[in-house]
Amino acid sequence: MSRILYLVPLVGFTKEEKTRRERLANSFLTQEKNEVVVEDIEEGPVSIESSIEEYMCVGGMLKKLVAVQDNYDAAIIGCAGDPGLVPAKELVDIPIIGPLEASLHVASMLGETFTVIPSTFSTISRKLRDYGMEHRLASAEGIHFPVLEMAKNKEEVAKEFLKGAKKAVEQDNASCIIIGCMTTAFLLIDEMLKDKIDVPIINPAKISVKAAEMISSLGLKQSNISFPKPNYEKLNKTLFQNSFR
Amino acid sequence: MSRILYLVPLVGFTKEEKTRRERLANSFLTQEKNEVVVEDIEEGPVSIESSIEEYMCVGGMLKKLVAVQDNYDAAIIGCAGDPGLVPAKELVDIPIIGPLEASLHVASMLGETFTVIPSTFSTISRKLRDYGMEHRLASAEGIHFPVLEMAKNKEEVAKEFLKGAKKAVEQDNASCIIIGCMTTAFLLIDEMLKDKIDVPIINPAKISVKAAEMISSLGLKQSNISFPKPNYEKLNKTLFQNSFR
Amino acid sequence: MSRILYLVPLVGFTKEEKTRRERLANSFLTQEKNEVVVEDIEEGPVSIESSIEEYMCVGGMLKKLVAVQDNYDAAIIGCAGDPGLVPAKELVDIPIIGPLEASLHVASMLGETFTVIPSTFSTISRKLRDYGMEHRLASAEGIHFPVLEMAKNKEEVAKEFLKGAKKAVEQDNASCIIIGCMTTAFLLIDEMLKDKIDVPIINPAKISVKAAEMISSLGLKQSNISFPKPNYEKLNKTLFQNSFR
Amino acid sequence: MSRILYLVPLVGFTKEEKTRRERLANSFLTQEKNEVVVEDIEEGPVSIESSIEEYMCVGGMLKKLVAVQDNYDAAIIGCAGDPGLVPAKELVDIPIIGPLEASLHVASMLGETFTVIPSTFSTISRKLRDYGMEHRLASAEGIHFPVLEMAKNKEEVAKEFLKGAKKAVEQDNASCIIIGCMTTAFLLIDEMLKDKIDVPIINPAKISVKAAEMISSLGLKQSNISFPKPNYEKLNKTLFQNSFR
Amino acid sequence: MSRILYLVPLVGFTKEEKTRRERLANSFLTQEKNEVVVEDIEEGPVSIESSIEEYMCVGGMLKKLVAVQDNYDAAIIGCAGDPGLVPAKELVDIPIIGPLEASLHVASMLGETFTVIPSTFSTISRKLRDYGMEHRLASAEGIHFPVLEMAKNKEEVAKEFLKGAKKAVEQDNASCIIIGCMTTAFLLIDEMLKDKIDVPIINPAKISVKAAEMISSLGLKQSNISFPKPNYEKLNKTLFQNSFR
Amino acid sequence: MSRILYLVPLVGFTKEEKTRRERLANSFLTQEKNEVVVEDIEEGPVSIESSIEEYMCVGGMLKKLVAVQDNYDAAIIGCAGDPGLVPAKELVDIPIIGPLEASLHVASMLGETFTVIPSTFSTISRKLRDYGMEHRLASAEGIHFPVLEMAKNKEEVAKEFLKGAKKAVEQDNASCIIIGCMTTAFLLIDEMLKDKIDVPIINPAKISVKAAEMISSLGLKQSNISFPKPNYEKLNKTLFQNSFR
Repeated sequence: MSRILYLVPLVGFTKEEKTRRERLANSFLTQEKNEVVVEDIEEGPVSIESSIEEYMCVGGMLKKLVAVQDNYDAAIIGCAGDPGLVPAKELVDIPIIGPLEASLHVASMLGETFTVIPSTFSTISRKLRDYGMEHRLASAEGIHFPVLEMAKNKEEVAKEFLKGAKKAVEQDNASCIIIGCMTTAFLLIDEMLKDKIDVPIINPAKISVKAAEMISSLGLKQSNISFPKPNYEKLNKTLFQNSFR
Repeated sequence: MSRILYLVPLVGFTKEEKTRRERLANSFLTQEKNEVVVEDIEEGPVSIESSIEEYMCVGGMLKKLVAVQDNYDAAIIGCAGDPGLVPAKELVDIPIIGPLEASLHVASMLGETFTVIPSTFSTISRKLRDYGMEHRLASAEGIHFPVLEMAKNKEEVAKEFLKGAKKAVEQDNASCIIIGCMTTAFLLIDEMLKDKIDVPIINPAKISVKAAEMISSLGLKQSNISFPKPNYEKLNKTLFQNSFR
Repeated sequence: MSRILYLVPLVGFTKEEKTRRERLANSFLTQEKNEVVVEDIEEGPVSIESSIEEYMCVGGMLKKLVAVQDNYDAAIIGCAGDPGLVPAKELVDIPIIGPLEASLHVASMLGETFTVIPSTFSTISRKLRDYGMEHRLASAEGIHFPVLEMAKNKEEVAKEFLKGAKKAVEQDNASCIIIGCMTTAFLLIDEMLKDKIDVPIINPAKISVKAAEMISSLGLKQSNISFPKPNYEKLNKTLFQNSFR
Repeated sequence: MSRILYLVPLVGFTKEEKTRRERLANSFLTQEKNEVVVEDIEEGPVSIESSIEEYMCVGGMLKKLVAVQDNYDAAIIGCAGDPGLVPAKELVDIPIIGPLEASLHVASMLGETFTVIPSTFSTISRKLRDYGMEHRLASAEGIHFPVLEMAKNKEEVAKEFLKGAKKAVEQDNASCIIIGCMTTAFLLIDEMLKDKIDVPIINPAKISVKAAEMISSLGLKQSNISFPKPNYEKLNKTLFQNSFR
Repeated sequence: MSRILYLVPLVGFTKEEKTRRERLANSFLTQEKNEVVVEDIEEGPVSIESSIEEYMCVGGMLKKLVAVQDNYDAAIIGCAGDPGLVPAKELVDIPIIGPLEASLHVASMLGETFTVIPSTFSTISRKLRDYGMEHRLASAEGIHFPVLEMAKNKEEVAKEFLKGAKKAVEQDNASCIIIGCMTTAFLLIDEMLKDKIDVPIINPAKISVKAAEMISSLGLKQSNISFPKPNYEKLNKTLFQNSFR
Repeated sequence: MSRILYLVPLVGFTKEEKTRRERLANSFLTQEKNEVVVEDIEEGPVSIESSIEEYMCVGGMLKKLVAVQDNYDAAIIGCAGDPGLVPAKELVDIPIIGPLEASLHVASMLGETFTVIPSTFSTISRKLRDYGMEHRLASAEGIHFPVLEMAKNKEEVAKEFLKGAKKAVEQDNASCIIIGCMTTAFLLIDEMLKDKIDVPIINPAKISVKAAEMISSLGLKQSNISFPKPNYEKLNKTLFQNSFR
């Protein structure tokens, strides 16, 4: 049995939304006896819509990760941009799943190229270069709702998403669509649009839960060669106030 | 519940070996109610140790795939070199899993570069280029036993594997090791060596079973854009003797 | 003097068409005393319009190649998609010419980028990546006639080809056009359109004949490092019924 | 005249060391009337020797940057790993200089490939891929002193550096050496070793000061297309407590 | 103090134009006590609008460079296409600055991709590939005035430039514009258009002067590994009539 | 029938050596009725052993090319480094063959990677990047004889070449060897070593003659898109003294 942490790197999440996401995340599990627990952080942004917010969530996220890691067999970074993926992999001994990273790899098994919706070209192409996958980016399409207003505009979000997806397939030769934002993912936009477009729609929330199950059940975790372990004694004294034993 | 076909693209498999692999493959499942069935083909090679044999198994494999596809929710190509992966994805409407492809993507989530053991540099680097992952190949290491004699030399195979893996990590900066041959994978060499080397060892047999579960449970399959559906009427008349309805 | 095999990896070729292609192929020779012989195969597809057919011709093609190799100094794979190029290079000791591969290299000497007509983007970009030439693909353009109906619609094929070629040059900055299908190549579409467009049109039928002459006259053949020789004894016992001596 | 901020993303810097670096940084100026001011941050690591520390300095660094940006014409991130370069470029309206980024570009004008000393392969190759320069990395060489003990071991650091540099040139074909750590850079190791090795040694402290002068004197700054401006109103309310006017 | 040679690889420059460029080039200096001297060559083209002229200026340029090198601390190739950059770097012992190369590197610090105006796609993409920067080219835009008639049509040149720049930003996602021709650069088109477009415009004349100051003041020059020194004795006897001492 | 110019971009060739090369070049022809004529230039280096000499031969070479182009159906640049290949392709209307370019393309049909002997890494890797083939370079090996002394030391040159070739195959996984110097090529080192090493040795002298025959017999030449025609009127007035009609 695997206990999976879904760590939202944000503050200000309502208890209701947390419960809703936890319920959905558990419904994505392959194996019923596994469990997903949603946690958020003490200090950080309310949503991530710029590189600034993406970086400023990392400190709070790593601190929470250290504090709770012993309770879990794997952890998912609860944001479709994978903030702090590299330091998180270095920091702890449980496997860390980046929903974007996992989605890119699943998409690559289903098609040659993909479009990420919502995303902006400059940001997503930089990210894909980091993952060595820039050549697979067909295009980027935005959605005109701030993240915090998406839930209230579910139908319109789906309509805009579909419009972007169709453009991606018809004009840019995209073979898959990846949902580029967790709030959109938890609207289950992939299920809403499944019958309206003939290419796979990859939901990073679902993929990350299943990847966490897969990797933890195999007893695997990130390599110490690519993600060398830090000097824990120094970290204890400086940034993490003796959180490591 | 998913029924998963593990299609060995070979002839001459003993019933005993088939049963052994089926038992192991079922033990790799994440969800107990899923099922893996091992089948082999009517016409083809006895093992795959050259590109020649890799290509000459494809005809028989595709024919079998068409014949049995209605019984399954997903199919794994039962060879670590992914023979016929592209035409299989084009041909049928269930998701097709290439064990090498899936292993490369899982390895990429765990580390930057990897070494494939056993493999030869010219062959594996060509394959990785096909998958757009040539930049991640740290090195290739061979093992000096013909595939059909590995089972009888399990301990020596493990010893040679370990030697290659250590060289890969120390000299070539490999961050993961991927098992490059299904016979080696079904020896569970990863479990034999787990405590002897400090980088992840990726077992393509395990990965492919779990990837098949993941992708079929998500209702996903390969994109029609990257893998356009053929003219079934023509195929029926020419190569597949009315196998498609 | 070189005897060159032009091996059509298809069944059902009429004697008339075989004779026509043989006559044309011989007219492409640089050196009159050389000779091209057209042969077809026993088992396989009637034309190649999908990856499925591309792979399912390989078994029959390799068997024929082994059976007749002693009669020839070089062999051309008689299809513009180079089916089975890698295993053919591994299998025999005479140089194997892939018409697409040879055309890509000649085109690269004449211009920076090219468009392949007819082709589909997903298929041709995958192929070019295999050859390490993806960066040179300007675009892909289709033609709306099934291969088997092209000969009857020669003028319309030429018209569509020209339309695609003009679009490629004007919109996609293509510097050369490569004919992407042997049936189109044997219509001598390059000669029909020579004066109608100001970029080189590369005919893979012509290029492959001349490349076979060049390479065989130099006493060269594919490298054993990139294309390691198989275990012939094993192949004799399994797939090739003692065809190797 | 340009006022240049050299922002050390660390805590615990002694006043003495701050003064020493400020004096040196001012000595690197091309134009005497320009000025470099060294500042440090309120919250963060004491030195950066892991990706964890690299990310955990960013929050404090961005806050300080916002607080003081009006006093400066340009800002240098005072760490050879360029922590937080992307969000800093997005956040403010003055040019942001990454010492590693600037050094890579200067090195690229002087030679084809380079070795970074000190650095570890997994970390530096990931960084260079982010900058689209992975192909220029000849090798990585470490130095066996913790950053905070380098100043006390200046001669030994130089000796190890020289050993690594010679290996890089002789074995790995490196055409330039880039100093990979600011503490090493402020030891002026380049001047100590200038006559002992015949390839350029690039000092990121010097390069970043001169790049800041160059870019600010030209009236240039990072592009809004690659680094889109955030929603300042939201940032004011959430992460920056009304620091933006 | 640095004396910088700005070597125009052309013949037929009027004394007036030479003086004008020298005056402007000196105004680009960061440090007032430095000095730029403009020289031209004895034998070569009157302007560079083809690869032919680009190559045919190199002989005269290298001869002049050898003749005057002792008077200078650094040399700029006075053409935005960097003709003869590699042999010039090999030939002399002072740093050689290519205005295009330097501009590409500065642009890369300010944004992800750029458009070069004026330029033609085939020529500029070939150049960028030489510099390992092909992936950063957003697009190429021409200007419809021959180089020698630009000065007389300053306003129209600016208008066309702006039109091209806007298209590059809006359609091709360019994050910076690089001026691709020295005559256009010396019209100070960047200053004319500064307030009309919201992305950096890189002026290679300015960048090259500042890069020459930076690199010479750091005591750096091109690496002997990438630019191995020639056999001067042989050169003296053959091409340079005892110009080297 | 094709008349092929083999244009040696050098001065000081003895009549004897010119005659010897012309005799050999004609022996490389596939079609006996074709003819190769060797010409040299009026002004330039005596041999090419640096980028300096490589560039300084181009002016004289282009002038000669213009003067004699009407007598020929194709022209080969008679140096294994392809000096002036791009401007020559732009300048004239007959196909221009670069022996290195042609050899790289033939080698790519025979194997995945190659080593160039003699060559230096910095120079040959730069050239291969220009051709988009850097990923195929296995290694570079030098030979310790100045070009002008090779003929006198034929046996020792062959011995050193063989040593380099063996190292390339065994240590660097090279699948082909390309002769990197025309003087070495005209020693017929490939024939001397044919039986001593089991990978193809590519002779650029032979390849360029056969490529010239192939391309001219097909009525092809370089594309005007990649190699746009210059303003001949301007060239006539400036660099070529009315050589164009």
